[in-house]
Amino acid sequence: MNLVCPVPLDRYPQVLLAHGGGGKLSQQLLKQIFLPAFGASETGSHDAAVFTANQSSLAFTTDSYVINPLFFPGGDIGSLAVHGTVNDLAMAGATPRYISVGFILEEGLPMETLWRVAQSLGQAAQNCGVEILTGDTKVVDRGKGDGIFINTSGIGSLDHQQTIHPNQVQVGDRLILSGDLGRHGMAIMAVRQGLEFETTIESDSAPVHREVQALLSAGIPIHCLRDLTRGGLASAVNEIAQTSGVTMALRETLIPVEAEVQAACELLGFDPLYVANEGRFLAIVPPEAEQKTVEILQTFHPQATAIGTVTGKSAQTLGLVSLESSIGAPRLLDMISGEQLPRIC
Amino acid sequence: MNLVCPVPLDRYPQVLLAHGGGGKLSQQLLKQIFLPAFGASETGSHDAAVFTANQSSLAFTTDSYVINPLFFPGGDIGSLAVHGTVNDLAMAGATPRYISVGFILEEGLPMETLWRVAQSLGQAAQNCGVEILTGDTKVVDRGKGDGIFINTSGIGSLDHQQTIHPNQVQVGDRLILSGDLGRHGMAIMAVRQGLEFETTIESDSAPVHREVQALLSAGIPIHCLRDLTRGGLASAVNEIAQTSGVTMALRETLIPVEAEVQAACELLGFDPLYVANEGRFLAIVPPEAEQKTVEILQTFHPQATAIGTVTGKSAQTLGLVSLESSIGAPRLLDMISGEQLPRIC
Repeated sequence: MNLVCPVPLDRYPQVLLAHGGGGKLSQQLLKQIFLPAFGASETGSHDAAVFTANQSSLAFTTDSYVINPLFFPGGDIGSLAVHGTVNDLAMAGATPRYISVGFILEEGLPMETLWRVAQSLGQAAQNCGVEILTGDTKVVDRGKGDGIFINTSGIGSLDHQQTIHPNQVQVGDRLILSGDLGRHGMAIMAVRQGLEFETTIESDSAPVHREVQALLSAGIPIHCLRDLTRGGLASAVNEIAQTSGVTMALRETLIPVEAEVQAACELLGFDPLYVANEGRFLAIVPPEAEQKTVEILQTFHPQATAIGTVTGKSAQTLGLVSLESSIGAPRLLDMISGEQLPRIC
Repeated sequence: MNLVCPVPLDRYPQVLLAHGGGGKLSQQLLKQIFLPAFGASETGSHDAAVFTANQSSLAFTTDSYVINPLFFPGGDIGSLAVHGTVNDLAMAGATPRYISVGFILEEGLPMETLWRVAQSLGQAAQNCGVEILTGDTKVVDRGKGDGIFINTSGIGSLDHQQTIHPNQVQVGDRLILSGDLGRHGMAIMAVRQGLEFETTIESDSAPVHREVQALLSAGIPIHCLRDLTRGGLASAVNEIAQTSGVTMALRETLIPVEAEVQAACELLGFDPLYVANEGRFLAIVPPEAEQKTVEILQTFHPQATAIGTVTGKSAQTLGLVSLESSIGAPRLLDMISGEQLPRIC
């Protein structure tokens, strides 16, 4: 057990919003506080952890949802809490089976709001084919919470023999994106800022486990999967590159972003590559599987496409991902450092 | 799907602290909102739910911890979050194996506080023999949380053939209490109120899975187990009596309460039978197993003792539990109705 707090307290005396942003500070918290305290290895930082019970492999994951506002175009905190956890299981290649639901409610929350969220959560679980097995409700005094926080934990079964993990990534592998980027984050920001566009930007919040099942059923030898939530695509590729010890090259012109989302990003000063998505993922597959992977994913989202390649090995932790921009110049794509969009999920 | 909120909104337009208190209003929320929305049966209201994966039976549970203050005599939110979930698994007769940890932190939380809680949580997990398999951290803006909230979900394995569930309770069964009552709740209240007694009241926060394992190993045919958290002993026996369709008789003089705890209860106007415990449980066993159960539990806590009997069948939902008080007169022991001690766990 450590006797002195390993976080430099002169620099970070307090927890910042960015410590929950899925970027560099989140990783510091994980590496300096949680992993040593919990006696856990770094593989625990993957979306879901795999364990074995009586010769069957299961995946286990947890996520808390603190999104503000509770309702947004394309979803709400209830359906989001199901999709997020279902997707974390899918990213481990597991079939989502069971979830738990823990509510932390703020005293004074309108009862009808709770009811609407519960209905949406139940409906989403049914749509995803997962059973809500157990739950818990706590209420905190007025001003000590913010309406509704939800934790969902999920259990999935691994019904195949593939190992899907960053350590499976190989030089030459292709990066396949499952659809367009940035809609969840910009839908939330548009509501918060009261922005109006010609068409309302809808969140991409959706389950992706059926996409993954389709790839597995088709025999695609998936090396790694990652959903593009907090920190967006940029943070996801950096995290994988670090864990896998590889460099990657992405081409910006290949990355699909809807015109409305692009406009909102420019207006608000965001880079869509760092914006959170809740229904998009990256599949890393060997080059010979690229075409078939894209074809299968396009049956779900017409904009699914290959966006880059694993270019080499590297023992560095920085400068691993390069992006060839739309004007042709390459630049380094770093992990998100601060907090771009607090409470996006 | 319901089209109208089934909670009477004229009476309960908003969520109250008591909706999280483990008593009547908590049950209403469960029955009127959550169970219908989640398509779940009422068996889900048991401490942990059991499912089967490839012929092995597993238990799954979740709990959020919002206790205030974060540190108290005998424990802190970190160790409590492990003990509570380990105990919920134990109450289903499961051996606790894996837990997940979800933090919701408030911006501005001192980093050292987080570190101390994480260390304590990790230490408690190690002491309980459970592995922390996966985690998540969210940060909410200042004033929208309260320092630290923790959700832990747990997975346990059922390594025996017994069915431990309220529906196994039979007329003639004995109620065995695993130790003295009221210490957790009164330890928290003493800190909140700034009360000082000759000796500091320490919380009973502790894992109880080893007690349960000892009973199972000894071949005790356990019918039902229930930990005595929110709502205390009184709510637990009422909940079991309702689910089992039985009446029960308890003798107050047999129920152990430490003198300091009794004094604190009298001073603050609490009934120790309604006060939350975090390391005490009730075992319901057939009469022929009473003596052996008490003997085994006394090797863990000298005050473990038989406190009552299942007296008959009943289809009522009220007036199921009678208490013979210390002056000999019987009275009905009802479930907690309001919120006696908010944010006790």
